Amino acid sequence: MRIALGIEYDGTDFLGWQRLSHGATVQGAVEAALSAVAAHPVEVTCAGRTDAGVHGRCQVVHFDTEARRAMRGWTLGACANLPPSVAVLWAQEVEPSFHARFSARSRRYRYSILNRPVRAALEARYVTWERQPLDAARMHAAAQALLGEHDFGAFRAVSCQAAHARREVLAVGVRREGERVIVEIEANAFLHHMVRNIVGSLLPIGRGERPVEWIAELLAGRDREAAGPTAPASGLTFLGPRYEARWGLPAEVSR
Amino acid sequence: MRIALGIEYDGTDFLGWQRLSHGATVQGAVEAALSAVAAHPVEVTCAGRTDAGVHGRCQVVHFDTEARRAMRGWTLGACANLPPSVAVLWAQEVEPSFHARFSARSRRYRYSILNRPVRAALEARYVTWERQPLDAARMHAAAQALLGEHDFGAFRAVSCQAAHARREVLAVGVRREGERVIVEIEANAFLHHMVRNIVGSLLPIGRGERPVEWIAELLAGRDREAAGPTAPASGLTFLGPRYEARWGLPAEVSR
Repeated sequence: MRIALGIEYDGTDFLGWQRLSHGATVQGAVEAALSAVAAHPVEVTCAGRTDAGVHGRCQVVHFDTEARRAMRGWTLGACANLPPSVAVLWAQEVEPSFHARFSARSRRYRYSILNRPVRAALEARYVTWERQPLDAARMHAAAQALLGEHDFGAFRAVSCQAAHARREVLAVGVRREGERVIVEIEANAFLHHMVRNIVGSLLPIGRGERPVEWIAELLAGRDREAAGPTAPASGLTFLGPRYEARWGLPAEVSR
Repeated sequence: MRIALGIEYDGTDFLGWQRLSHGATVQGAVEAALSAVAAHPVEVTCAGRTDAGVHGRCQVVHFDTEARRAMRGWTLGACANLPPSVAVLWAQEVEPSFHARFSARSRRYRYSILNRPVRAALEARYVTWERQPLDAARMHAAAQALLGEHDFGAFRAVSCQAAHARREVLAVGVRREGERVIVEIEANAFLHHMVRNIVGSLLPIGRGERPVEWIAELLAGRDREAAGPTAPASGLTFLGPRYEARWGLPAEVSR
């Protein structure tokens, strides 16, 4: 039986999603908890790996098991065996052909910037601080150049292991909510550090140091060295993947 | 010279606001940071003490000093000497007759309840979890009985040292924001545990276990034993006090 799970996590105290032989990872915590519930070793496959310090609002994983448990048993049992910073939101039996990574049609990320003269104290785990005033409308206008299919080499980490840099951005928006500037971006898939590198180049545009056209120029130039620095991990949350409605998954991850 | 400060803090890792001879408190951290900037011992007086685990969005304090610093120096200098969970939002010179506690006309609190089947992972520091579905409209209707001046003995902690239990509630509202139910309450002043005890009695009404009229009955009965349990500290944030406009303080704490 193949089961899909929705998983929420605070990435602050983890070395990232992917299991490591030493050190706390979200995958390691989830597999340990599910193995306790299943009473056999469980390995999970996720929709999108996240780096150290990056959060997950609704990561999706799948795993195979012969153990018979009510779906509620998987959810409650896993939560009882997980640290407080990770929770299983839902569990659902899926067709054996479902694959958390390969079935996903898109992924959505949110980046939160606390934009005020003073650093964060409350909710400091979930934002990046920018003290200079940001023009969110300028950032939004600049970001529209990312829409569609492009070679995103300009925003790709040196360590990125993807075969090529072509990705399709389906939606991107920047808006202000009080003291915060929020960047949201949906793409078919992302390169390593792609969102944080895009945010790192939107920031100088928001501060007025670069023209609105700079994102389009960087994109065309495909030169990582020309773009802005990688924005910190703490502001980034993986909102989750989206799957075709036929898989029957919860609304949050269906389209 | 008397100076007023706005202070934000994450109360999770503190034993509360008030200075103790041992253990980390917000007051202790603020006084140590200001003493370093002033180069003499500084004692602060706050608008409203908060308990262990309770957060502050804009606590206000005042202190007296002969040290001459730009207001920006107080803000930046204090922030540089504070732990990451505390920040000074602003500093402003005030008349010598200003008193953070006695000049405050009202105080505002927010209580956040994560209302879903699964416990919190993200933002777990800032919410209390309620798994049973809550009817926010019912809770809102019930809470309106608190408006006006009453003896709040039913919602007063046994440890409360106030001379009497009469307080005036100026505004109270309960609303749903997605998975969260938010309670906001403004009063001239609060008894010890008053907000958490009110929330503890609104919860059974929201779950449908008690009638809407229960809050009015508890209020009239003035019996702490009859009311609900004290809701956990993590969901509570002191939004801040409000002062008359003539003091010239920032809009967030003026009325």
